Amino acid sequence: MNVDGKQMRPIWFDEDTKTVKVIDQRRLPHELIVEDLTTNDQVIHAIKDMYVRGAPLIGATGALGVYVILVQKSNRGEDDAWFKAECARLRDARPTATNLAWGVARVMEKALSVPLYDLRVSTALAEALEVVEEEAVNCQKIGEFGLAIIKEIAEKKNGKPVNILTHCNAGWLACIEYGTATAPMYTAFDAGIDIHVWVDETRPLNQGARLTAWELGKHGIRHTVITDNAGGHLMQHGMVDLVIVGTDRTTRAGDVANKIGTYLKALAARDNNVPFYVALPSSTFDWTITDGIKDIPIEERDPGEIKYVQGLVDGKIASVLVPPANSPAANHAFDVTPARLVTGFITERGVCPAREDEIMALFPEKKIG
Amino acid sequence: MNVDGKQMRPIWFDEDTKTVKVIDQRRLPHELIVEDLTTNDQVIHAIKDMYVRGAPLIGATGALGVYVILVQKSNRGEDDAWFKAECARLRDARPTATNLAWGVARVMEKALSVPLYDLRVSTALAEALEVVEEEAVNCQKIGEFGLAIIKEIAEKKNGKPVNILTHCNAGWLACIEYGTATAPMYTAFDAGIDIHVWVDETRPLNQGARLTAWELGKHGIRHTVITDNAGGHLMQHGMVDLVIVGTDRTTRAGDVANKIGTYLKALAARDNNVPFYVALPSSTFDWTITDGIKDIPIEERDPGEIKYVQGLVDGKIASVLVPPANSPAANHAFDVTPARLVTGFITERGVCPAREDEIMALFPEKKIG
Repeated sequence: MNVDGKQMRPIWFDEDTKTVKVIDQRRLPHELIVEDLTTNDQVIHAIKDMYVRGAPLIGATGALGVYVILVQKSNRGEDDAWFKAECARLRDARPTATNLAWGVARVMEKALSVPLYDLRVSTALAEALEVVEEEAVNCQKIGEFGLAIIKEIAEKKNGKPVNILTHCNAGWLACIEYGTATAPMYTAFDAGIDIHVWVDETRPLNQGARLTAWELGKHGIRHTVITDNAGGHLMQHGMVDLVIVGTDRTTRAGDVANKIGTYLKALAARDNNVPFYVALPSSTFDWTITDGIKDIPIEERDPGEIKYVQGLVDGKIASVLVPPANSPAANHAFDVTPARLVTGFITERGVCPAREDEIMALFPEKKIG
Repeated sequence: MNVDGKQMRPIWFDEDTKTVKVIDQRRLPHELIVEDLTTNDQVIHAIKDMYVRGAPLIGATGALGVYVILVQKSNRGEDDAWFKAECARLRDARPTATNLAWGVARVMEKALSVPLYDLRVSTALAEALEVVEEEAVNCQKIGEFGLAIIKEIAEKKNGKPVNILTHCNAGWLACIEYGTATAPMYTAFDAGIDIHVWVDETRPLNQGARLTAWELGKHGIRHTVITDNAGGHLMQHGMVDLVIVGTDRTTRAGDVANKIGTYLKALAARDNNVPFYVALPSSTFDWTITDGIKDIPIEERDPGEIKYVQGLVDGKIASVLVPPANSPAANHAFDVTPARLVTGFITERGVCPAREDEIMALFPEKKIG
């Protein structure tokens, strides 16, 4: 997408240097730094330490990571056991997003289907780039389907802007292009619809304040940063027309794992009759489970992410300690919003209510038995 | 309360110097700084800029502020018009907490009831100190009534700790002693009940992470700082036995204005059958209104409080910019939790359900007509 007039993606394969390159999103919005990923350790570190984050981007990084495994200096050629073990290590870098396992498995299996090392490398690269392009196209389609929802609301607003609330960053920085939750926003904005976005700052890592606000601002979309606490109040006062969020993993029955705090917004939306949509490519569905609260593992991250807040001071990026140094903190990174609180899913195949039969009707090939 | 073995209050009248002294809570937990309040401008600044915060403490500061008005260098003796205008200016320092208007009016009226300047000064001081002591006693009683609720839960937990979630700081730092929401916690802890407190960090000013964690830590109460986003997830997983919060203003019908985000926790508590209590002295009830969402003015504060986060870096207190510098932010400081989501009120007269008839039965002298 557009960054100061230049087209950028959060991850790409540089043809000249034959290198996978990523934006280090931990430094945004204050510094735009690009890093090379040339070893599996670097890929895992980039995922764990959140240079890259967001379900589709983690999936794409996993896919490209399989190629990196094969070309890294320490590669063991056609040693299948080693290759599979490295892929497993990559797959386990983060537990909640289903896309990581999906992206790694897809490219690994494709590579294993060819016997020769050189062919394996080129096959892995081609397959990974296909994953990347598919994600981009999926997000574009999500944008088109979401546009219809925003258009319908805009028609009832008599020229007043459509106020959309989003949580975390499910923008192009979390995907490849357009984003998931933001795709309908970009598409509506580009279609000339007057929109304004309430951006939850999204503690602890402030992906909303740092990344979503940055993306939307670079594209010229009017937005306002708010605390994660504010959404309920805004909805009570008619200041939110719809909520759109992304997801890290959604069950076949429609339970939605997403950044911690999403569930609270869904409760507020329900209490105030505000439509609550989840935008996702089908790669984010986990077709093997139904009960999200029971079956989706919720990552617990370093409490330091809560105790220290990163930002800019005196032109430099620094972290400040907020609570007493000796107070413990707990950092549950995701929560699960039950399907009953979700108005609908916006997917690359269309919009559907959050019910297993409706989801399966959209993706009939995923039916079990 | 106890701070490293020394008894402290957040505001007090120093007999030796005849000066009102306050803790500058903006610097906690990293620095414990005490300031003198010797002019009305200083009192207003301390309230507006949140050296002092929390409904009961704002009320007590307003009460002592009336005394400061009378003894400040620029005082105009028995000039009633000037005195009333200064009191009005003090009353308007913050709009949401009803205690400020209440504390100022009470001491002003008492002072105006005596004709001579010297008598007015001593009358105002005596009345203000009575307000302070009443707040301390009220909180002690809230603690005793709240203890019964915690004890009942503890008996069902078979020796496991009672997990209490609280939002913002309604601790002794927000009151005089014990606090409101924390009073049942201190009382239960002192009675030997095993409790653990989930402390919402409470963006944007992090009163939970900075103040509640500090207070509880100093008293030796086990606690864990969490993001404001986390409460719903914890409740879904049975990790919260009850919620206790304070309030800045509560209507006679039981609608609760409190720090932004409280409403979201109340929704999550309802969704998970977790009891949600509000602890308050009767001075926090606004007996003149019933509909909190319509009738309680919600303060909008400086967006800078959202964009910049204060903490400790390299041993010094600094503020870091989190979102892009040019992204707007909105800072609604409170929200209103409808009475239907509140399990009960813990007051200095006992516990009652959040219904107008029940509240009025506890405070029959406030009946209108």
